[in-house]
Amino acid sequence: MPVLNETHNPDLRCWISSANRATCDFPIQNLPFAEFRRKNTAEAFRGGVAIGDQIIDLAAAKGLFSGEAAVGLSACAEPTLNHFMSLGASVWSALRLALSRALREAATEQKALEKCLVPQDEAEYSLPCQIGDYTDFYTSIFHATRVGSLFRPDNPLLPNYKWVPIGYHGRSSSIDVSGQTFRRPQGQLKAPDAEAPSLNSCKRLDYELEVGIYIGKGNALGEPIALDETDQHVFGYCLFNDWSARDIQAWEYQPLGPFLAKNFASTVSPWIVTNEALLPYRTEFKRDAADPQPLAYLASAKNTQQGALDIKLEVLLQTQQMRAQNQAATALSESNFVYSYWTVAQMVAHHTVNGCNLRPGDFFGSGTQSGPDEEQGGSMLELSQGGKKSIQLPNGEQRTFLEDGDTVVMRGYCQQSDGVRIGFGEVSSTVLPAHESAHD
Amino acid sequence: MPVLNETHNPDLRCWISSANRATCDFPIQNLPFAEFRRKNTAEAFRGGVAIGDQIIDLAAAKGLFSGEAAVGLSACAEPTLNHFMSLGASVWSALRLALSRALREAATEQKALEKCLVPQDEAEYSLPCQIGDYTDFYTSIFHATRVGSLFRPDNPLLPNYKWVPIGYHGRSSSIDVSGQTFRRPQGQLKAPDAEAPSLNSCKRLDYELEVGIYIGKGNALGEPIALDETDQHVFGYCLFNDWSARDIQAWEYQPLGPFLAKNFASTVSPWIVTNEALLPYRTEFKRDAADPQPLAYLASAKNTQQGALDIKLEVLLQTQQMRAQNQAATALSESNFVYSYWTVAQMVAHHTVNGCNLRPGDFFGSGTQSGPDEEQGGSMLELSQGGKKSIQLPNGEQRTFLEDGDTVVMRGYCQQSDGVRIGFGEVSSTVLPAHESAHD
Repeated sequence: MPVLNETHNPDLRCWISSANRATCDFPIQNLPFAEFRRKNTAEAFRGGVAIGDQIIDLAAAKGLFSGEAAVGLSACAEPTLNHFMSLGASVWSALRLALSRALREAATEQKALEKCLVPQDEAEYSLPCQIGDYTDFYTSIFHATRVGSLFRPDNPLLPNYKWVPIGYHGRSSSIDVSGQTFRRPQGQLKAPDAEAPSLNSCKRLDYELEVGIYIGKGNALGEPIALDETDQHVFGYCLFNDWSARDIQAWEYQPLGPFLAKNFASTVSPWIVTNEALLPYRTEFKRDAADPQPLAYLASAKNTQQGALDIKLEVLLQTQQMRAQNQAATALSESNFVYSYWTVAQMVAHHTVNGCNLRPGDFFGSGTQSGPDEEQGGSMLELSQGGKKSIQLPNGEQRTFLEDGDTVVMRGYCQQSDGVRIGFGEVSSTVLPAHESAHD
Repeated sequence: MPVLNETHNPDLRCWISSANRATCDFPIQNLPFAEFRRKNTAEAFRGGVAIGDQIIDLAAAKGLFSGEAAVGLSACAEPTLNHFMSLGASVWSALRLALSRALREAATEQKALEKCLVPQDEAEYSLPCQIGDYTDFYTSIFHATRVGSLFRPDNPLLPNYKWVPIGYHGRSSSIDVSGQTFRRPQGQLKAPDAEAPSLNSCKRLDYELEVGIYIGKGNALGEPIALDETDQHVFGYCLFNDWSARDIQAWEYQPLGPFLAKNFASTVSPWIVTNEALLPYRTEFKRDAADPQPLAYLASAKNTQQGALDIKLEVLLQTQQMRAQNQAATALSESNFVYSYWTVAQMVAHHTVNGCNLRPGDFFGSGTQSGPDEEQGGSMLELSQGGKKSIQLPNGEQRTFLEDGDTVVMRGYCQQSDGVRIGFGEVSSTVLPAHESAHD
């Protein structure tokens, strides 16, 4: 297990009572970061930390701390977290510790901090940082095998999968924060038996349940990040829905990979749970004995002992009809990031082994986090077996892929026997009908 | 032919004599934009326009023009051109016209502008803008067919090629301006007969001769750009070397496309030749009669009549030994952007048909621009037939792929019977040895 500091102590209690509830995503042990402002105002976005049902306005808290914590606090007043992310793990940790101490029952900072609180109910969020480059990985072997069997029945899992943490570059311009709505994309579709493709609105629109990873401190071009150094470069984690158009993908993706099938929208949850807050949920990275061992640059004792992360993940769906009838979103599947075939440390080390430079705010998607069981599919493509099997919803509706008006919600949290719950909040976004010019 | 304005008049002469030489890349009809400062200073980068062997310092020229030209001029004082690019074709055109008039022999602005000149010899350049997203296309059917036959002998040109302007997302963090040096990448390599891959320095390092395209005005998420509207969104063009590690690529690229094989370095020329300056070189977009006609969203009379661009392209190599002996770079191949199977208008329309949003400063690579003849290959992979045939250099050296110390230079220009030469300058960059930690 990693060395933990006092911020992880399960006995800590906060002077904000909502933070002490067992079901709360944002107890004093969490302290995730976002960029927020009061809803329906023209206020500047600034950094905030979630605690209970409140946000600490970090711009308003200016001057409260000293030393490295003050350096971090000052950077968090900016409209993006990029500068704060660039300052490195020592500053992130110092600010987190100062906040933890100031939020504990009987803290002397209570009076001052009370003036910096904004209820989460009254807030809206922006992207927490400017994402320079977005890389999507493909780290669930269960997802890769199931999807591969649909795209390439004879050859589902390619020979490089167990050696290379497969990834590719995605589009950053269309990433937005929870609450995003987007039009159903149109694109070239071609049925296997059709003579030619045609332009049509997507018929096989899907979500992908992913964990998002934000890079903090970057590396210079030409200077790889070693596997055991990656904790110095990973700022934190969020939930990530990488919307996908399966029919566009099938026709366009060879030989250079997915393009228009993926770049029309991708949605992140507003809160970044820090790498430090997740240390207690690090766990053993396991490989089947029959599988090859990773190459040396992807292997270390630390990575084996604590490379994996136990994050429970869930996808829910609320259809337009359910919304009209005030029915809550219904669960589609559950999974866990611990099933990932590659660790985050391996993703960072692999991404930079060729000298590629990462910048503060760069973003990784983990790839769809499907579990080993069929019902743990992290996409509708898997749950509907490529569209062959209808998914029955409790209100009588059915789905094989998403319909207009569907809202997809993803949630995640970490929890162990000590009862502390480190939650991610949620990412929610909604499919709008295709552009009026779209062909049908 | 497109409607031309007075800036294209071949009879225009400039009061800077170097601009009137027949071999000059930057005559008064060109007026390309860059971000520059005086070499070896801590000056701020600011916009400049090349004229002859000089640069007009656009920050220094503040106040010289009025109306839309003044709006453009003011934006060009910033350390990136993103704001200027966002202002749209009317502003770009107004500033170009004002500069053209002020640079003509006997212009009243001569005295004032003379104070704004910086010799190109004394300048250094930065990236002209912040590149949000970089997309690499694959528009030379000759390159696609030759490379496809090396990676997939049985299946060189995939069935989607003649329907879809194939592209994928690349990495923006490692794009730098001419003069870039970078370490030979290391990565997972696997010989076809090897049991397992190993980490090694790249043995098949290659360049790719591309045209770069900068997006000016963007589009909102969900709002496609129609084919005949794309001129309102394309700011200009440069030369682009998309460095590639062929051995890393062969092992990693399936199923999601190239990743570490491409993202360790990419180099642009400093000057952006505007879309407007290239209008006289627009020409007919041709398809073989036997090839399918593009789908409706990729077809228009305008695109057929003037979609292609006649840009002559050249790649040269200067080895370390040649440099030591003061020998100039030697030509490896010549090609032309007119061979592209898809037009820039088609790239923009296709990229946005699904609603994907482009932002000012976003960048497209055209893909390697190889011509129909074997000696017109735009990469060493093609010229050496996959490493099977040695390329003989005039000084007795040989190459199949690039060696440490090799400098690759790319040049390009447009010229027709009127004698006007619209040049791109050059992009030059140099391979350094692999990281000291690299395995061999």
